[in-house]
Amino acid sequence: MAHPALTPEGLRLCREMIAPHVHRTPVLRSRLLDQLSGARLSFKCENFQRGGSYKIRGATHALLQLQAQGDVPAVVTHSSGNFAQALSLAAHSLGIPAHIVMPTNAPAVKREGVRTYGGIITECAPTLEAREAAAEQIARETGALFIHPSNDPMVMLGQGSACAELLEEVPGLDCVVAPVGGGGLLGGTALATAFMAPGCEPVGGEPFAVDDAYRSLQSGKIEGNTGGYTVADGLRTVLGSHTFPVIQKHVRTIIRVEEGEIVAAMRLVWERMKIVIEPSSAVAFAAVLKSPERFAGLQTGILVSGGNVDLGNLPF
Amino acid sequence: MAHPALTPEGLRLCREMIAPHVHRTPVLRSRLLDQLSGARLSFKCENFQRGGSYKIRGATHALLQLQAQGDVPAVVTHSSGNFAQALSLAAHSLGIPAHIVMPTNAPAVKREGVRTYGGIITECAPTLEAREAAAEQIARETGALFIHPSNDPMVMLGQGSACAELLEEVPGLDCVVAPVGGGGLLGGTALATAFMAPGCEPVGGEPFAVDDAYRSLQSGKIEGNTGGYTVADGLRTVLGSHTFPVIQKHVRTIIRVEEGEIVAAMRLVWERMKIVIEPSSAVAFAAVLKSPERFAGLQTGILVSGGNVDLGNLPF
Repeated sequence: MAHPALTPEGLRLCREMIAPHVHRTPVLRSRLLDQLSGARLSFKCENFQRGGSYKIRGATHALLQLQAQGDVPAVVTHSSGNFAQALSLAAHSLGIPAHIVMPTNAPAVKREGVRTYGGIITECAPTLEAREAAAEQIARETGALFIHPSNDPMVMLGQGSACAELLEEVPGLDCVVAPVGGGGLLGGTALATAFMAPGCEPVGGEPFAVDDAYRSLQSGKIEGNTGGYTVADGLRTVLGSHTFPVIQKHVRTIIRVEEGEIVAAMRLVWERMKIVIEPSSAVAFAAVLKSPERFAGLQTGILVSGGNVDLGNLPF
Repeated sequence: MAHPALTPEGLRLCREMIAPHVHRTPVLRSRLLDQLSGARLSFKCENFQRGGSYKIRGATHALLQLQAQGDVPAVVTHSSGNFAQALSLAAHSLGIPAHIVMPTNAPAVKREGVRTYGGIITECAPTLEAREAAAEQIARETGALFIHPSNDPMVMLGQGSACAELLEEVPGLDCVVAPVGGGGLLGGTALATAFMAPGCEPVGGEPFAVDDAYRSLQSGKIEGNTGGYTVADGLRTVLGSHTFPVIQKHVRTIIRVEEGEIVAAMRLVWERMKIVIEPSSAVAFAAVLKSPERFAGLQTGILVSGGNVDLGNLPF
């Protein structure tokens, strides 16, 4: 049962609300990568977004919706990745304190990012139970409202605004490929295509190592991961109660890629397009490179989800 | 004594001639880097140029001028860097064979770049004498016309077209900073500012390790380098008979930077702007970061000369 806000009008309102707070990022093309892939590629560059990823869209939308309902003393989330930075930045811009629960083993560069953007860090043991307990305790003690990094209808709708912009900028897209982790971006992308361009197919890209979304579509229920390692650190999460139904309804294809394919795709984009994209973004492009028969000649949108990379720890 | 083509009309004609063959590259801004530097920065992104650097501008202009004068059976240059790729690509587009003399110790990635763009490589010993002898022999045997990577009025004017575009796109620039190696880019930049925006000061950025241009301006004659190492591989060359007089006439300031400053500036741009720039380009930005008192509040153009980096051999 879909959330009542997940409508064309909901997406329109969301875009209007967040517009003053997010960049309209550029769409880039590359003749050389078109030749190499056989597709006609349009890269939606959320690596140039505020905070370095699309996550600011959903974070901002969730915050503004909360504010529209009443006073928001503070917010809290648990994330060691881009959502932590995005919520810190979005909340800071709106004058709301943001508590971020991060595992003790989160990379220093991520903690630094959160602090730069004004987030208040609480450390916890690196388990899901410890994260959730810490977040609940903060909520109780401070009155902070909890915002999930992906499994939240307002977050998902906000993430869909990136695809909405892409569809407006490149009319006639045959498909849009997005990486899938928690499903916020792919779910939002699927909603945007369904609302604005029903002929455009949303496609997911996912590492083999954490192919829970692929298996969830096959089994018809939310599957977990068994702890496999992937360089695409943003995609280690699983689908949730809000994202899975949307993806199940609208997405027919998830393409899985190997670790080496992710790194090669990332390197190709850095070398040829001269832009810094993170491994999770490379997963979407790797999915296209891997499937020339599927994408041959197609107008293909690629959601470049972000560009937050630890330059001191590159996979090449 | 300046070459007769180095006039406002010459620059206008040059831009008209090369326009169908080069990209008009974007100008990017960054609030965060403005805050860090105290200046108001506009980055002219020649890393997005065809062939990955501004060099295609001068190469194309030189080729078209030669073609305007008569039949061009082939061209030859000696370069192990961006000009080798740029001339290969420009000549290939115009249907002219390009011979590239490269030292035997040139990185494999550079040789591969030249081959990708259709250049014909001749290897030689890694000395200036061997390079010149090899180029002369090719010219004799094939009728190829020699084009110097920087010390050529047509090449220099072509390189100036990047600054010309920047000046049009950002009216009211107080200064433009360009890296200086052979002086093609800085010379062209100086001409463009003199012709189009006399109130805009051209400034050079140069590694301490190869500060021949700085010393040449001091002594009043072309100085050499003593073989110091710099990570900015594009800047290891020296000024020439055509570039030095132009720089001497128009450039009052060359700011020298340390190797660590170059790498830090490069890393900052990659991390914050999410674009891949090469060390030579970082030299210009490092010069601004190093001199906050000079650039405070100034509308400052930065010529991002290129983005050709060996990702397997990064300085961080």
